[in-house]
Amino acid sequence: MNGEPAAAICVADRGLQFGDGVFRTLRVRAGHPLNWERHFRRLAGDCAALALPVPGEALLRAEMARVAPGDATVKITLTRGESGRGYSLPTDLAATRIVAAFPPPAYPPEFARDGIRVRHCALRLAEQPRLAGVKSLNRLENVLARAEWSDPEIREGLLCDAHGRLVEATMSNVFVVRDGGIATPDLSRCGVAGAQRERVLDFARGAGRACDVRDIALEELARADEVFLTNSLIGIWPVAHLEDRLWIPGLVTRQLQALVEADDARLP
Amino acid sequence: MNGEPAAAICVADRGLQFGDGVFRTLRVRAGHPLNWERHFRRLAGDCAALALPVPGEALLRAEMARVAPGDATVKITLTRGESGRGYSLPTDLAATRIVAAFPPPAYPPEFARDGIRVRHCALRLAEQPRLAGVKSLNRLENVLARAEWSDPEIREGLLCDAHGRLVEATMSNVFVVRDGGIATPDLSRCGVAGAQRERVLDFARGAGRACDVRDIALEELARADEVFLTNSLIGIWPVAHLEDRLWIPGLVTRQLQALVEADDARLP
Repeated sequence: MNGEPAAAICVADRGLQFGDGVFRTLRVRAGHPLNWERHFRRLAGDCAALALPVPGEALLRAEMARVAPGDATVKITLTRGESGRGYSLPTDLAATRIVAAFPPPAYPPEFARDGIRVRHCALRLAEQPRLAGVKSLNRLENVLARAEWSDPEIREGLLCDAHGRLVEATMSNVFVVRDGGIATPDLSRCGVAGAQRERVLDFARGAGRACDVRDIALEELARADEVFLTNSLIGIWPVAHLEDRLWIPGLVTRQLQALVEADDARLP
Repeated sequence: MNGEPAAAICVADRGLQFGDGVFRTLRVRAGHPLNWERHFRRLAGDCAALALPVPGEALLRAEMARVAPGDATVKITLTRGESGRGYSLPTDLAATRIVAAFPPPAYPPEFARDGIRVRHCALRLAEQPRLAGVKSLNRLENVLARAEWSDPEIREGLLCDAHGRLVEATMSNVFVVRDGGIATPDLSRCGVAGAQRERVLDFARGAGRACDVRDIALEELARADEVFLTNSLIGIWPVAHLEDRLWIPGLVTRQLQALVEADDARLP
């Protein structure tokens, strides 16, 4: 925390009081933070949305190197710091920066190979353009949505907005494939814009595929040739099973998985 | 925290990680928590909305008596406790309970007597029925709205939803008075339902006044005979000044202020 070892945070920190902060989670392999440029850009964008100061990139790199010299999951949390009880921002706030290392993700390889089972969540995401795309510490919607099921065979839950538009899954972004092109929901009203989502869009465009970022009605899912989920820890998971619809992981999903894996294997 | 002195909370607490918790703030006078029954009922309702365990009332009373034996502001924060990084709820969660005392509110008496100046906020509250009315730790909307102005003469900012319906102010509930009856926004889509709001509604009904809890278009404000704000620390503040509309604090506001003050002065 702010460059020092710590396990606890002041109860007056606005991260706890109001969720007044942001976070991002990423994969570190052999001390190398994967997809870092996009992660840092997203983090900086999230800070801008909340008018939080952006920590220096070199500082974050140095702190990640210290807590995660090998293979790890790293979570970077930035809050507005300590204040009194009120919402208003004192002028002398000192932001809090937490760089924490966890074991690397250990998902069974079948998830990426054979695909996973997902469900629909009943909770509808609220539309707040001021926070859309931002991974803020206000994540109660995700918590409530994830609490809708306990069946361990179901790995993810899809979330819509109040108009029935597909937005994301509880911890990942969602893509649909049709006729060789890909589409992912526009996140200008709600949802979290993951760094992995951005990379997949970049790589699909680079491979000459049509890429749409647009509103996607939930009904479109049934007509998709392939559906897959992305985040920085899972990589790309094909959706094999949604309620009574089945898919076999397809060529577009395989191509994008290969491109992401190759990018992660690059030497820094 | 959980009955022990503490200044810090574990960084793995879900209150910090996701804003996975609730809080309520109240006034204690001579060791007596004012309007306690409604506060506890609200707190229990907020816990139910998040499926959090409700602490025992006697336990909370005992902890408040210890931290706030005299005059104080007390903030009760309840989180789902510590967990790993994921949104899913481990089965062995132990909730975190923070009962914290602060100095009693010290607002100039002119605010309640002469009324205050308020403004319109540009931020529109998102509609999330699952969290509407709940004072959860997801309060970024309030933080962003309060950051819209720095003029110290302006004491509060009014908030609407995306449809232009009046909802609340950044830290208080709002009431309009017309022809002797009162109305306050319905909070089933967004907003925080304060214990003071509930008391004012109860007392107005008890005094035989018409009370409406309903959608209120922002335009209705200009036609109101009186407008006032409520929360447990400010009591009731008349609105004297909204942009270029002026009001003189009226009889209904005065009656309700007197009823609330008399209730607060009752011996337990």
